[in-house]
Amino acid sequence: MIDEDGRVAEDAPMRWNGWGDPAKEKDLPRAVRTLLPLLLGRIRRPGPAVLLPDVVVPASALTAEDLAAFGAVVGAEHVDVSLESRVRHAGGRSTPDLLRRRTAHQDAPDAIVRAGSHADVVACLTIAVERDLAVIPFGGGTSVVGALDPERGRHRGVVSLDLRRMSGLIALDEISGEATLAAGTTGPDAEALLGARGYELGHYPQSFRYATIGGFAAARSSGQNSAGYGRFETMVTGIRVATPTGELDLGRSPGSAAGPDLVRVFLGSEGIFGVITEVRVRVHPVPRERVFEAWTFRDFASGADGLRRVAQHGGGPTVIRLSDEAETAVSLAQVGKIGRLLAKGASVITVYEGDGIAERRARTAELLEQSGGTSSGQGAAEDWLEGRFDGPYLRDSLLDAGVFCETLETGTTWSNLQGLRDAVERALREGFAGEGAKSYIMCHVSHVYPTGGSLYFTVLAGLRSEPLEAWQRVKSAVNDAIIAAGGTISHHHAVGRDHAGWLEQEIGETGVRILRAIKRELDPTGILNPGAVIAEQDS
Amino acid sequence: MIDEDGRVAEDAPMRWNGWGDPAKEKDLPRAVRTLLPLLLGRIRRPGPAVLLPDVVVPASALTAEDLAAFGAVVGAEHVDVSLESRVRHAGGRSTPDLLRRRTAHQDAPDAIVRAGSHADVVACLTIAVERDLAVIPFGGGTSVVGALDPERGRHRGVVSLDLRRMSGLIALDEISGEATLAAGTTGPDAEALLGARGYELGHYPQSFRYATIGGFAAARSSGQNSAGYGRFETMVTGIRVATPTGELDLGRSPGSAAGPDLVRVFLGSEGIFGVITEVRVRVHPVPRERVFEAWTFRDFASGADGLRRVAQHGGGPTVIRLSDEAETAVSLAQVGKIGRLLAKGASVITVYEGDGIAERRARTAELLEQSGGTSSGQGAAEDWLEGRFDGPYLRDSLLDAGVFCETLETGTTWSNLQGLRDAVERALREGFAGEGAKSYIMCHVSHVYPTGGSLYFTVLAGLRSEPLEAWQRVKSAVNDAIIAAGGTISHHHAVGRDHAGWLEQEIGETGVRILRAIKRELDPTGILNPGAVIAEQDS
Repeated sequence: MIDEDGRVAEDAPMRWNGWGDPAKEKDLPRAVRTLLPLLLGRIRRPGPAVLLPDVVVPASALTAEDLAAFGAVVGAEHVDVSLESRVRHAGGRSTPDLLRRRTAHQDAPDAIVRAGSHADVVACLTIAVERDLAVIPFGGGTSVVGALDPERGRHRGVVSLDLRRMSGLIALDEISGEATLAAGTTGPDAEALLGARGYELGHYPQSFRYATIGGFAAARSSGQNSAGYGRFETMVTGIRVATPTGELDLGRSPGSAAGPDLVRVFLGSEGIFGVITEVRVRVHPVPRERVFEAWTFRDFASGADGLRRVAQHGGGPTVIRLSDEAETAVSLAQVGKIGRLLAKGASVITVYEGDGIAERRARTAELLEQSGGTSSGQGAAEDWLEGRFDGPYLRDSLLDAGVFCETLETGTTWSNLQGLRDAVERALREGFAGEGAKSYIMCHVSHVYPTGGSLYFTVLAGLRSEPLEAWQRVKSAVNDAIIAAGGTISHHHAVGRDHAGWLEQEIGETGVRILRAIKRELDPTGILNPGAVIAEQDS
Repeated sequence: MIDEDGRVAEDAPMRWNGWGDPAKEKDLPRAVRTLLPLLLGRIRRPGPAVLLPDVVVPASALTAEDLAAFGAVVGAEHVDVSLESRVRHAGGRSTPDLLRRRTAHQDAPDAIVRAGSHADVVACLTIAVERDLAVIPFGGGTSVVGALDPERGRHRGVVSLDLRRMSGLIALDEISGEATLAAGTTGPDAEALLGARGYELGHYPQSFRYATIGGFAAARSSGQNSAGYGRFETMVTGIRVATPTGELDLGRSPGSAAGPDLVRVFLGSEGIFGVITEVRVRVHPVPRERVFEAWTFRDFASGADGLRRVAQHGGGPTVIRLSDEAETAVSLAQVGKIGRLLAKGASVITVYEGDGIAERRARTAELLEQSGGTSSGQGAAEDWLEGRFDGPYLRDSLLDAGVFCETLETGTTWSNLQGLRDAVERALREGFAGEGAKSYIMCHVSHVYPTGGSLYFTVLAGLRSEPLEAWQRVKSAVNDAIIAAGGTISHHHAVGRDHAGWLEQEIGETGVRILRAIKRELDPTGILNPGAVIAEQDS
């Protein structure tokens, strides 16, 4: 958050064992509470979660000399071994992360070091190599794939390198429409700083309120406006990176044939090659107008056909997303509209921003109608916009009520979309059934390309005992199903540690060898985020 | 070329020591012939160039066993040590390449091996490693940066691995709008095969008539329709690659966060990591309509401002290009229109294809008018389209007349465009002056992005003696100037050997280390295209 002097406050409020601002916790809507037992059977409320001061973590493995060495670089006040900070930096925000935080004994990094500059990061990496400490780069803490697990690998200890002090708009080139942002700048801070100058980045993933620019880059994030402004990697025009063995400042020209695009080596590298400290991004003038329109389709398949037509034509909405029948019904339940005309079928939401809206909307309408869509006015689309960052709050309420809730995602070509969706749903349904649990599976398409789209699943399940272990078995079967059905192991959540075991099946042994070769070169002692993206090797 | 049975003939006609089809050679337009002495002073016609049968090349270093080993894989008829083939595979089509081919003694690869399949390529790489032979992957032979020099590095010999037998449309997914093409398919063959099914790739670099799909990928090519369909790398959705130590089949989803995008490691790798054997690309329906419009601006700066507005708005023309004052004047001279109203100022050409042309054209007109542009009808744009692949023919005629002619290119942000252009022009002018030659420098912008654009220079010079050596000195100074002024060492011609000495200044020592690490992993004995992209190391 930006204070009145234009400075960025150090910590946006984030519930330590759940999502977001504790003041914004949400009770489950009554209609959802009524639905749940019907869908999932009788659910037992879990026992009370542990309170933060009662959490037990291992003693910090760092010595006074270690702490002093980091303190000499970043200032002693920015080296933190407090219980609260260690617990807050102990992972991300996947459902397994949240379930682990409900328990008394938790793993945690040995210390938090808050770097204030690129030079700080370089110096901290040198110290970590010298002192044999693993380093987990930490931005908004919103990973849902285990990328922030306090994994020390073969090292003596593990430090969480918090980058949020490195926040701000470093440069704005208004002629080129290009902004340089410090990696620790959060989504809202970036938009506030740009907005004050009349510009917008336009990257709004669900993690927007907490996640950082560096995190978006490191994880190959994709935001809700991707139909209009592209995935985050398409917005990036340059990066600055600190590695344990050298620095990089990449991105001289928006188009280049100067060898392979090395920026892309770091986008999606999730901190295993280096720490991204600055990101140069394309920005656009703040859109002056915004128009909403919702559509209804007979079913998911016809809706997906409509999205395909729009994506292949180009020049359509800024946001376009399709909810399947199950998600459409629950969305309507959430806003108390279940049972209405719209409750049947699959809903599509479109949002238009910027110029030429009337013609883009008319063209999109024509294409959606060709696939059997019917306009259903703007209400549902406005509802979506209002609640678009609130999904994770709902998950907390579900977990509190004893309902297991998690999301996962993949992507593929248009011709393979339905086959992949079926395979994932089957793996989820059969997986939960194998655990003796009923499940309710929802799916949406929220990122579209000329040649394909994403699939995002939300699953609710009435797991009775050991939900963490049960989910790991189900998720493993789902990952197998994604690979077998030709999908990508992640469309925008990234690999982290949770998907690392499947990456080789996607990119092949030779692909993994490329990643290991780069890692060996830049991080020969393997201090950076051990076990993320590529599984640790024995040798 | 596709014959009537739909098969691809092995060799499109290409002048061995110049550009293109000998039947299409062009005399210099009379106006240009009149202009040249005014611009460059008195020019002496060079002596006659050597005839192909009189060229002397070193004896092939390959043994009968070497040839038999390759022959066992590809068939003896596809292993070629003839003088003609060796000379034809001895380099690309830069002006230095053409000047070298006018001399009696030339270097050449020791043999040409024509692979017929991915499996052939894998087997040939194994043989090359076993027999200590360097391999230069060869597509259309149109490199203008020395990427095809018959460089053997530390190896016993060098083989040109010709990929043009691997030609054809392997698969077309009409739902996803995705085609899989064999790497050796030429531009015209790809478009003919797709066009027969109602689709178009839409990639038209000046090398289109000869260059191959694999070459476009390996060199990060950009075509004349890039404003509409993007650079080639943005069209690529997947690739298949053979390396000396393993194979890759990459690209499961149009959007993915499954680690770094390894497709991008091979786009721009110019054959130093592996041989691209198949490319999956986005295609679109053949456009039904095409509209032309030319514009005139007071000067280059106001024209560039117009292009910037159009690129930043989006949804504009399929082709947009700006010629500076010098290029505008010569273009008009070529078509015999010099002295007309349009001869002053800088001309912009726009071409619109596909849907929504009326609205795209109206919006573009509004933006170009804001920068002071005046529509000048469609004639100049149609003229450009007609001659758009013929530039290299003109160069041959100039070289025959004793006029040195070469092109080079770079790119940068919009805010840096004018500074970079000035720096390159100054380096060219002063460089040629230092060689005692007058020069005439033309510049255009033909690839635009929201944050910047390309700069393409054509230079004519009245070099009296040793034009090759003189140009190497001038080009070296130009490369220094590009780096110093913040440009990329190449926007779409690639690195090859000619730019390899400058790459480290662009991507840094750490960037070069990344490339070397990947190369060491995939090609540990360094047989692939030695010295291209990254200069050879001593160790």
